[in-house]
Amino acid sequence: MPRHISAFSNSTVKLLRSLRDKKARRSEGLFLAEGLRSIAEARDSGLLPQIIAFSAEGSRHPLAAEIIAATEAAGGDAIETDPDILSKMSGKDNPQMVIAAYRQPDTGLKLIDRSSSDLWIVAQELRDPGNIGTILRTGDAVGAGGLILVDHCADPFSVEGVRASMGAIFTQTIATAPWEEFLPWLRGGKGELVGTSLTATDDYLAADYARPCFLLIGNEQQGLPADYERECDRLVKIPMAGRADSLNAAVAAAVMAFHIRASWR
Amino acid sequence: MPRHISAFSNSTVKLLRSLRDKKARRSEGLFLAEGLRSIAEARDSGLLPQIIAFSAEGSRHPLAAEIIAATEAAGGDAIETDPDILSKMSGKDNPQMVIAAYRQPDTGLKLIDRSSSDLWIVAQELRDPGNIGTILRTGDAVGAGGLILVDHCADPFSVEGVRASMGAIFTQTIATAPWEEFLPWLRGGKGELVGTSLTATDDYLAADYARPCFLLIGNEQQGLPADYERECDRLVKIPMAGRADSLNAAVAAAVMAFHIRASWR
Repeated sequence: MPRHISAFSNSTVKLLRSLRDKKARRSEGLFLAEGLRSIAEARDSGLLPQIIAFSAEGSRHPLAAEIIAATEAAGGDAIETDPDILSKMSGKDNPQMVIAAYRQPDTGLKLIDRSSSDLWIVAQELRDPGNIGTILRTGDAVGAGGLILVDHCADPFSVEGVRASMGAIFTQTIATAPWEEFLPWLRGGKGELVGTSLTATDDYLAADYARPCFLLIGNEQQGLPADYERECDRLVKIPMAGRADSLNAAVAAAVMAFHIRASWR
Repeated sequence: MPRHISAFSNSTVKLLRSLRDKKARRSEGLFLAEGLRSIAEARDSGLLPQIIAFSAEGSRHPLAAEIIAATEAAGGDAIETDPDILSKMSGKDNPQMVIAAYRQPDTGLKLIDRSSSDLWIVAQELRDPGNIGTILRTGDAVGAGGLILVDHCADPFSVEGVRASMGAIFTQTIATAPWEEFLPWLRGGKGELVGTSLTATDDYLAADYARPCFLLIGNEQQGLPADYERECDRLVKIPMAGRADSLNAAVAAAVMAFHIRASWR
């Protein structure tokens, strides 16, 4: 049976609240997901939370009740609590009625099975967790195998990242690696590294993309470092019609990924 | 000569700070843009601010100095102030060194000259100002004429919207209208209304898009209302490979807009 907790000072409440902070996520090995949609996505991917917190109203939803029961049956902790406590956990005025903490998966490159998908997205020094979450969501939609985060990226398991991923945090494989580790790993198997660059001469529409394709997206402000560009097997540009010289990083990833997928049809 | 102001209580400082609030933007008819890049974009589009505030460091940049002088020559107000005051204005810990207030343009549909571009983006009930700004940025890059905001959208002139637009707030024509006004306006001239829908049967890659194209993007949560979909001349779907059933609204707009542009080449 779920416990009822209404004290902000309760240790489980404090633990869940702490997970908005990266250090706590790392030391606890947990991350937060909010809302029935995300939690159902996780369950459909075979994942149950370690801890699930919900309002009385939230637990009345049949799907929520089912996941709460499954979480307890698997040895997880289920707590019924008040909307204002859920609000503090999520940092939102209108909190979801269900919030859950999941074990953070490993993010080693060894997890990437390049034979399992013909398209992988690689992001370098991406600083906005919302962009990372949006790229995960796009990756899921476009049928990418996962996202490789190179160098110092924002945390995909942050509340903002998980939120923007709309459940794709549970369906996309995520790996993190410094460039020095990524590049030898990439060259240890099949795969074309495709970068986008403002200085490239090849139009992205005219290129012939090989599989598996590793689509490399650079930092929001600087784009890709010149020496990373030189390592690309193919460097293309998305022509810009207006005054601006760039796209939002998550938008550029999506335009490229959907075009590459379309070019294979 | 610029005035030096170091008091939070100064009326111009208070006015600039107030512009983070929609009501104040409306009553003052002004909006904020931050950073030299945006302000240079505005100047290149023939727009100078009504008020420009900058740090001593900011004014040492030659381009900033030029715009500050031009603003004063045009009768605008230039104030040198402290980084902590700039920080309060922008609501950011690391404020830009230049912040400026511009007159809000008219946003009537009559501003849209459909002969001036073959592609227009139409967003309905979009609630996230970051999405609106990102769509403006995408519109600039893809060569759209502008953005028509239908029904109750977030404010494109909000700080978040302007920031995400990366200067495109100054280059894209923006119109706002309720659907009841937009539809007769649209039907009063040439133009194909293209909507995306999960329930459409036509693949977005197989369609033949006519010009000018009005690309209609629906609300982040609900998508387009069914009766709005019925008014579309063409309804297409972006096939989803993964578990998720949707894309971020700004991502969907970009994938469609770049594909439509590509299909005309």
